[in-house]
Amino acid sequence: IHIHTYLTLYITFGLSRRKKYKLINIIVQCSDFRKTSECINLFIKQASTIKVHKMSIQLPADISSYDRTTFKAWINSFDVVLCDCDGVLWLHNDIYEGASDVVNKLTDLGKKVYLITNNNMASRQEMREKCQANNFKLEIENMISSAFAMGQYMKHIKFNKKVYVIGSNVLANELESVGLTVIGRGPDVAIDSLPDQVKNDLGQMDDEVGAVVVGFDHHYSFPKLFKAVNYLRNENVKFLATNTDESIDFPFFTFPDAGAIVAGIKNITKIDPIVIGKPSKILSDVTLKDEAHREPKRFLVVGDRLNTDIMYGNNNNYQTILVGTGVHNMTDVQQIIDKINNGKDSTEDTKKLIPDFYISSMKELKIKLESI
Amino acid sequence: IHIHTYLTLYITFGLSRRKKYKLINIIVQCSDFRKTSECINLFIKQASTIKVHKMSIQLPADISSYDRTTFKAWINSFDVVLCDCDGVLWLHNDIYEGASDVVNKLTDLGKKVYLITNNNMASRQEMREKCQANNFKLEIENMISSAFAMGQYMKHIKFNKKVYVIGSNVLANELESVGLTVIGRGPDVAIDSLPDQVKNDLGQMDDEVGAVVVGFDHHYSFPKLFKAVNYLRNENVKFLATNTDESIDFPFFTFPDAGAIVAGIKNITKIDPIVIGKPSKILSDVTLKDEAHREPKRFLVVGDRLNTDIMYGNNNNYQTILVGTGVHNMTDVQQIIDKINNGKDSTEDTKKLIPDFYISSMKELKIKLESI
Repeated sequence: IHIHTYLTLYITFGLSRRKKYKLINIIVQCSDFRKTSECINLFIKQASTIKVHKMSIQLPADISSYDRTTFKAWINSFDVVLCDCDGVLWLHNDIYEGASDVVNKLTDLGKKVYLITNNNMASRQEMREKCQANNFKLEIENMISSAFAMGQYMKHIKFNKKVYVIGSNVLANELESVGLTVIGRGPDVAIDSLPDQVKNDLGQMDDEVGAVVVGFDHHYSFPKLFKAVNYLRNENVKFLATNTDESIDFPFFTFPDAGAIVAGIKNITKIDPIVIGKPSKILSDVTLKDEAHREPKRFLVVGDRLNTDIMYGNNNNYQTILVGTGVHNMTDVQQIIDKINNGKDSTEDTKKLIPDFYISSMKELKIKLESI
Repeated sequence: IHIHTYLTLYITFGLSRRKKYKLINIIVQCSDFRKTSECINLFIKQASTIKVHKMSIQLPADISSYDRTTFKAWINSFDVVLCDCDGVLWLHNDIYEGASDVVNKLTDLGKKVYLITNNNMASRQEMREKCQANNFKLEIENMISSAFAMGQYMKHIKFNKKVYVIGSNVLANELESVGLTVIGRGPDVAIDSLPDQVKNDLGQMDDEVGAVVVGFDHHYSFPKLFKAVNYLRNENVKFLATNTDESIDFPFFTFPDAGAIVAGIKNITKIDPIVIGKPSKILSDVTLKDEAHREPKRFLVVGDRLNTDIMYGNNNNYQTILVGTGVHNMTDVQQIIDKINNGKDSTEDTKKLIPDFYISSMKELKIKLESI
């Protein structure tokens, strides 16, 4: 019914030697670009003399250009909305115009809306309070953070050793709430004498630690890096990360996120952490059990980052929509598509960065929703 | 005269159709494996019917196996010794057996010995004191650290803006000693309120900063990461690093080095720093001007790390020797050679990881030196 991916097929006809190639531009319209190879195969079967010469993926459809019927059909195509926060609904305390109206309208239309954020600085309770203060009609069960997901994951794998955490109090609380003993909370400040520092750090190491869990931590320091790296010398100690977002970009400054902390530890240990937050599939597995009965296509991920939100959606075969008010925009999508079309990078992971749909802002989406 | 690289050439003869290939194993002995292609070309020219089928690089020669004449010829082949410290002469305060005897004997034989270290925790004065306390007969002009090199580089490029430094007092002192104004020295500890922290950090930013200089810093903290990243939003601000060593590995613990700090900043900014220490050629350009009149082949780099020491030597076309008491050993060299020989990785940078020579320890080298 709804069209959102255009494929341009250049077809080579077996003509006379001199006129070897005749290119015909055909646009294949289908609802899921990941099914295009199926379409193409069908097409080729039915016209055995032609050969596909080049395949190109075009930009996701901007849903603001949909007519009323197409838009309505699209709205009816999903039941669960998994909505990112920073860059989509707000930027820290700056709530975007139309954001609460969109969330409330989708809820009114019978959608189950979850706020899913890699941000692990605010507790679910604080997220709910922020929502209620800004007229988002959402309850605590609608709030999912990568910190919450980390706790759920530890419970899921029945982890029962101590945890060394580099992260906020919120992350430590989530781990404690599933019965774990957490060490590493709060400041860990270096002293001036480096030999004493090393002696202190080594003296504080706890043999019962079975995991290093890394999230965002504004108390991150050299002693924390030292301890994390030394715990990970033991190959039985797990390395887990809430998320690997590089930063949150504000108009006038860049705010480092957990990615830089993870990168530092990985630089030394050469170990890839198990990431629980977006784009990891683990997040869905451990926090969306109530929705597990639904078809993946009945979920819609709303996000502003291609390498977290959109990839998370594609990792789960959910529908995905990019909102243009955050980190990535359509120029980024175009660059990735160009790379794929030029044959420069066509790995599965790269294809997963491409959203199905696009909307410039919550305000635009609000206008569309008011029209139905 | 001296043999240290063996090349196995498999030669294809143009025989009858049925016996198309006959492989002959020929060992070409030459003093510099980087000249092997020349040798091979000469060989091919003189026997025009043969084709080189496969070339393989073998392990560097262990100089402890040299006879007296070959060893003496090798000792006579260099004038300047550029010797790494940690992992070669000592590990922190644990001085390796024979290390001072080797350095002193080489000096007695008329060699100019420089200690060249990426370690930027100790000043040149402290390095000299450590040497003298342990019977190494070396003066301050024989001491080169990546911190000293950073100062010399800044002088060399006539840098005259302020510098934001993440590094030891030693690094800050080196920068001040060439007339620069340094900010960022010492602890920069986060306060508990994150919004206040961000406000404070942004308030402390200095518009006159023209470079972020990163070295090892045990006071490294989130506020320092925050400031570095935000200075680097301005594309006119340079990003410089003393070194990118991941860690110093002790038997019972891992000590993080500057690499982890650089990796965190790079994760966010996506900017590659200009690295001044090994393996960078810049180090030689700015600190070894007195030796600039010599042929590169008259220099010998002594080191324990392939990706810093040995690559540094090869970047400068110096001779290189791996000492087996530190980070890398002959198994690492063998793995790299296997990769090259199997055609899996034959980039120039990978070839630069292969040392010309090998010795298991300073103790072994001492024994050889006593024999001449």
